[in-house]
Amino acid sequence: MEICLTSPLDMHLHLRDTTMLRLAAPLSSDFAGAVVMPNLVPPLTNAADMLAYAQRIREATPAGVNFDPLMTLFFTAMNEQELAAAQEAPGFFGLKLYPAGITTNSEGGVSNLADAHRTLSIMEERAIPLLVHGESHGFVMDREEEFLGIYRQLATKYPKLRISMEHITTAAALQLLDEFENLCATVTLQHLIITLDDIAGGMLQPHLFCKPIAKRPADRDALLQAALNAHPRLMFGSDSAPHPRCKKESCGCAAGCFTSPLSLPKLAELFATHGKLDNLQAFVCDNACNIHGLTPSSKRVILHDQPMQVPSSYRSYGETVVPMFAGEQLPWSVKSIRES
Amino acid sequence: MEICLTSPLDMHLHLRDTTMLRLAAPLSSDFAGAVVMPNLVPPLTNAADMLAYAQRIREATPAGVNFDPLMTLFFTAMNEQELAAAQEAPGFFGLKLYPAGITTNSEGGVSNLADAHRTLSIMEERAIPLLVHGESHGFVMDREEEFLGIYRQLATKYPKLRISMEHITTAAALQLLDEFENLCATVTLQHLIITLDDIAGGMLQPHLFCKPIAKRPADRDALLQAALNAHPRLMFGSDSAPHPRCKKESCGCAAGCFTSPLSLPKLAELFATHGKLDNLQAFVCDNACNIHGLTPSSKRVILHDQPMQVPSSYRSYGETVVPMFAGEQLPWSVKSIRES
Repeated sequence: MEICLTSPLDMHLHLRDTTMLRLAAPLSSDFAGAVVMPNLVPPLTNAADMLAYAQRIREATPAGVNFDPLMTLFFTAMNEQELAAAQEAPGFFGLKLYPAGITTNSEGGVSNLADAHRTLSIMEERAIPLLVHGESHGFVMDREEEFLGIYRQLATKYPKLRISMEHITTAAALQLLDEFENLCATVTLQHLIITLDDIAGGMLQPHLFCKPIAKRPADRDALLQAALNAHPRLMFGSDSAPHPRCKKESCGCAAGCFTSPLSLPKLAELFATHGKLDNLQAFVCDNACNIHGLTPSSKRVILHDQPMQVPSSYRSYGETVVPMFAGEQLPWSVKSIRES
Repeated sequence: MEICLTSPLDMHLHLRDTTMLRLAAPLSSDFAGAVVMPNLVPPLTNAADMLAYAQRIREATPAGVNFDPLMTLFFTAMNEQELAAAQEAPGFFGLKLYPAGITTNSEGGVSNLADAHRTLSIMEERAIPLLVHGESHGFVMDREEEFLGIYRQLATKYPKLRISMEHITTAAALQLLDEFENLCATVTLQHLIITLDDIAGGMLQPHLFCKPIAKRPADRDALLQAALNAHPRLMFGSDSAPHPRCKKESCGCAAGCFTSPLSLPKLAELFATHGKLDNLQAFVCDNACNIHGLTPSSKRVILHDQPMQVPSSYRSYGETVVPMFAGEQLPWSVKSIRES
């Protein structure tokens, strides 16, 4: 069995910088492009820094490989001029809003949405997407659901603003998606597969620890069904996050799963297992193109049901990163990629 | 400020064996005695092995220190003769029932309570306490509540059997305690203090990972209130579990917090902070004596509000164990201990 995907997109990706970027970029470029998160240290908040980062991403991408970095800026109270400059920058995609301090390098995030009104209005006028890490500061299992009221407020107050609920993890978020036409959402690989049980139900598994944390079986099942059925406003966004092994396997393990190099094989397996391979193209590309009007670079990725051995770690440029499914054999793999 | 505790007891303790026992026993003997768990490899299932283990515990206890190991056997389908032999063994306390495979070294546990009927009936006749690790095999946050129906069945079917719900973690378990006079319960230090947020709400904290996992703030608050108010059927049981550092700070971290050497100072702090120091004696000794008819060895532990520096780890006999609150300064400490 095999499937040919046209220009798959990862709508939520962390590439980091310097040596980690050089490790992660080649491992992420099975995709034709990715929405690249701006939470560097310091975060990207202006067009010039963003363009410089896009250039570093291109330099880290292997020669001859089509990979479009869709660039984002860390949401701050930008004015018309700043937003115009961002929008004119090649490769600019949107603004990523973090509630202050909720995840890796988000200490400078937004703590009061009212302060953001002017910027959100301009984004609405200019059709700039707003990507949101939607978690409250409450109890870890409730954070996403507690944030849904903010999404509801945003979607109501800015009816033309395209609001992407990033890396959703709950059935409740999916329900909200159906309430507002201006909401869309991304979902990661791991949230289609794991629950809190996989992280903390047996031995503690730091490499599956991510934010938002994986929730209940009913949440995972609802997300998987929506993905398998190609919900038209649900897009694949890996949230793949390369952390150094030493920061995952220690006290105070950092949040994030590294999935880029195996996302497409694992998605093919999931969709094939459920007899839904025909819907994979929509999930990994067409929905995003329809929602955001994207025209990704041409790439054809053929996946087949031949095993892929996931390495126990990826090492280069002095960095060591442990992927999800480290050391396991996955039943599907990439057969060939044609860049054209 | 200071408080003198008479013969404090730890009603749920893991001492392990060999080098780890030699590390843990001296660090656990601020208490006058402890109910020692039987989940060695292989588990303790007969009086002879139990007596030999009790002897090893005594050998690992510093000379001149009063510390009564209250010995338990791993619940199996024991007959009248076997239970009689156990009961005649000096220091025997009760049987510990583990649902199969739910926690460290519990692979040989009980998978069907009906099979246990004969043994439970004899225990009821002989007034042998039944200690239960009460978790289902369900979703990690639901396991204790899902098990409450089993407690209800046991308490109803064996009205004279003394059933101890070990290391309870939920407000629902506390409610059940009030429904049946033949139920009692232990609660750990960590479950009076932390929630899942402390384990996985920020960075992942393996040294706070234990089973049952810490639950919601409302659960923690209910447990703390019950302890502070000296609920007469709630006893302190640390569930302190010394795991080698390498098994906590790695993929597949083992479950358990090591709290023995700091339990009494931290409890004194908690009770003092809430103006409930007068209730600490009941929580750490009197309730257990009343419930189980214990007469512990004489020991007087004076605690005072002078700081205790918790070491970053305890090292001896080639073992390294990281305690809860490693490296922190606690506001209360042990001032003196009189064995007499």
